[in-house]
Amino acid sequence: MRTTVAKFGGTSLADAGQFRKIKEIVRQDPDRRILVVSAPGKRFPEDMKVTDLLERCYEAAAAGQDFSADLDRVRERYREIVEGLSLDFPLEEEIEKLRRHLSEKPEKAYTESRGEYLNARIMADYLGFTFVDPAWCVCFDRDGTPDDMMTRRAMQAALRPLRQAVVAGFYGADADGVIHTFSRGGSDVTGSLAACAVQADLYENWTDVSGLLAADPRIVEMPKRVEYMSYRELRTLSYMGASVLHTDAVLPAADMGIPINIRNTDDPDNPGTMIVRKLPKGQKKYPVIGVAGRKGMSVIQVEKVMVSDGSGFSAIMLDILKNRQLPFEQCLTGIDSITLVIRDDLLESCKEDLLEEIRETLHPDFLGVKENLSMIAVVGEKGTESSDANVMVLQALTRAGIEISTINQGAGKLNLLIGVPEEHYEDAVRAVYSTI
Amino acid sequence: MRTTVAKFGGTSLADAGQFRKIKEIVRQDPDRRILVVSAPGKRFPEDMKVTDLLERCYEAAAAGQDFSADLDRVRERYREIVEGLSLDFPLEEEIEKLRRHLSEKPEKAYTESRGEYLNARIMADYLGFTFVDPAWCVCFDRDGTPDDMMTRRAMQAALRPLRQAVVAGFYGADADGVIHTFSRGGSDVTGSLAACAVQADLYENWTDVSGLLAADPRIVEMPKRVEYMSYRELRTLSYMGASVLHTDAVLPAADMGIPINIRNTDDPDNPGTMIVRKLPKGQKKYPVIGVAGRKGMSVIQVEKVMVSDGSGFSAIMLDILKNRQLPFEQCLTGIDSITLVIRDDLLESCKEDLLEEIRETLHPDFLGVKENLSMIAVVGEKGTESSDANVMVLQALTRAGIEISTINQGAGKLNLLIGVPEEHYEDAVRAVYSTI
Repeated sequence: MRTTVAKFGGTSLADAGQFRKIKEIVRQDPDRRILVVSAPGKRFPEDMKVTDLLERCYEAAAAGQDFSADLDRVRERYREIVEGLSLDFPLEEEIEKLRRHLSEKPEKAYTESRGEYLNARIMADYLGFTFVDPAWCVCFDRDGTPDDMMTRRAMQAALRPLRQAVVAGFYGADADGVIHTFSRGGSDVTGSLAACAVQADLYENWTDVSGLLAADPRIVEMPKRVEYMSYRELRTLSYMGASVLHTDAVLPAADMGIPINIRNTDDPDNPGTMIVRKLPKGQKKYPVIGVAGRKGMSVIQVEKVMVSDGSGFSAIMLDILKNRQLPFEQCLTGIDSITLVIRDDLLESCKEDLLEEIRETLHPDFLGVKENLSMIAVVGEKGTESSDANVMVLQALTRAGIEISTINQGAGKLNLLIGVPEEHYEDAVRAVYSTI
Repeated sequence: MRTTVAKFGGTSLADAGQFRKIKEIVRQDPDRRILVVSAPGKRFPEDMKVTDLLERCYEAAAAGQDFSADLDRVRERYREIVEGLSLDFPLEEEIEKLRRHLSEKPEKAYTESRGEYLNARIMADYLGFTFVDPAWCVCFDRDGTPDDMMTRRAMQAALRPLRQAVVAGFYGADADGVIHTFSRGGSDVTGSLAACAVQADLYENWTDVSGLLAADPRIVEMPKRVEYMSYRELRTLSYMGASVLHTDAVLPAADMGIPINIRNTDDPDNPGTMIVRKLPKGQKKYPVIGVAGRKGMSVIQVEKVMVSDGSGFSAIMLDILKNRQLPFEQCLTGIDSITLVIRDDLLESCKEDLLEEIRETLHPDFLGVKENLSMIAVVGEKGTESSDANVMVLQALTRAGIEISTINQGAGKLNLLIGVPEEHYEDAVRAVYSTI
């Protein structure tokens, strides 16, 4: 028996109509045995997510204020779903329970988690699957740190005996039963952990886009979809700020080599993007699969004759940053020079101090800072065609009249990082995209 | 009164005919008031340099063996010069003095320094200039370390009052008058120090080539001469192993912004290569002035998700190298990866230990070593045209079918460092040269 863990995001669960789409998606493939669900998301741009409504309820309750209007809105969201699907679900009872909790001793994580909890229970009823409360099997320490190893054991215990199950995303509990939520990645992390626990053949992540795009659609008009990409390529895109699965949600699946498929609930025939360790045979490996980038970067340029003479100059430089707990994005050492790429916002408050320390410690021949740069990542686990791809990318940037400051490709050839002035960021992304 | 300090190398002083050429060169420009001379070099490929003969005399004398045959060869070299120039020079007296020194308590530095000493005295007689013995004004500590500050003061004191002088290169003395020699750069360093001491308008370095070439002539047939280059570009070429002025000989002049002109004694009409801080007005700035490189490189590739999260991963990596006193040529950190370029010969003996330490300390997701790489430096203080130049270079390499592993251009844009397989090194140099 093959197993697909299918995680559905908030917009995929925003109303009864969306629930029906999911039922059809599940019906089409019996491997989809384990579902992980978010809370109802926005139905239209101005709408509020149920989790945000719940947070408002908590804030008001904690301040001793009236929260009933927001709780009523929560109830209405679920009533539309339950009635739309003609389910016999004890909604009033659940809402009443939450009202009592809020009136007595409100807890933030518990309150916020009720969106997923209710959605999962309703979905389980609707599909005839077993409801699995992550309070039983997604394990946190008392200080709120997720315990991945324990979660794997507990999730195995909870899910293995079940043929079909719906798990609520986003939360879990500690040994005392106190609810905690994931700070980052939310239900995506739950989905990834569930996929690992049951050693799924596939982890589907159903959302409102048909996979990942090769560039930011706010910059490039109608960018193409990426069909296949590697975990490492995804990580690069994520690092560069593309809104994709959070690293915490990718790593568990990546560790076990479980393919991740990004799908669109509103366009279920679209195969979306498949994130894999290795391409299936016969699938062409593209040297460049996408382009992403970040603005707000500074470059610190330190020059000193004979930097590379083994005096540990670069090591001292990096120790200065480490002692200041100042992270850097890139470090390039060459002949007599070190170039550091640091985020503007991190550098801002300590810039003068840092430069002074570098001056006093290292006595550089030249020390300069250039602000308002952006870093472009040309993403692709490039094979033998990497050189061609690099030429095309640099040529496109040059033709677009964009000044290139730094160029960085490590031996892994996973990405080519190029520094360009911030005001040319969008042009640079478009230029690189034109080569894909 | 303008001052040119002219340093002449060994082949420029190999015999009487060469001395005559120098007299003509000095006659043509009265600014050439301070000369720095080496010992007589080779007259033909199988010939021995006088300094090497002197070293053999010392080795034999120190071992209590007969050194007279080699000392006779030294005498013959100078006799040819003195008689060829019809000078009344007390050669026998000087040789006798050296013989006594060797027979009594031979000192290596003193013995080796006599080549320059005699040449400078002969040249001073021949030109009617004042002989300046660097034992008076090139200052060393007793442990043999050059004292640049004291040398500047002493050289000023020695040279400023003189209208015309010949200084012997290569050596100096400590406070006790004990002779010491420069370990690196030899007479070039003396020339540079003299130029600084008299605040020369120009430092000419006369040798047997008409300036610096844009590529290694053993790889590229008849490479063009570089007309102008910056100190920093020279330093890059030097670092990459091109046989040019040693850094120790460039730095003092560079510090004072004294232009260095590499000239050819056998082709005095050729303007050679001018090394400057800034190009003279109207002079075109070439984005790439030359290409050089080094074989025998290894690349260590360390990958770990979230390297760049501020955990100091790279700093720890460089500390490992620093503690092992293992110098590295380049370090490139990107997203989740560190690439280190290290010389094969340095890595060889400690490779397994180092990898083990990296594994145990950093627990990387991937750790790999690639040997037998070469690093190509595309040298040029590139301005706005840098991108064009980079495209052309990468394109040329790609067309030549050369696989590129690493690409590194820091914010200074002084050079583009490219890693290519060692077996393609020569092809890569030719490909890059074709773009210049």
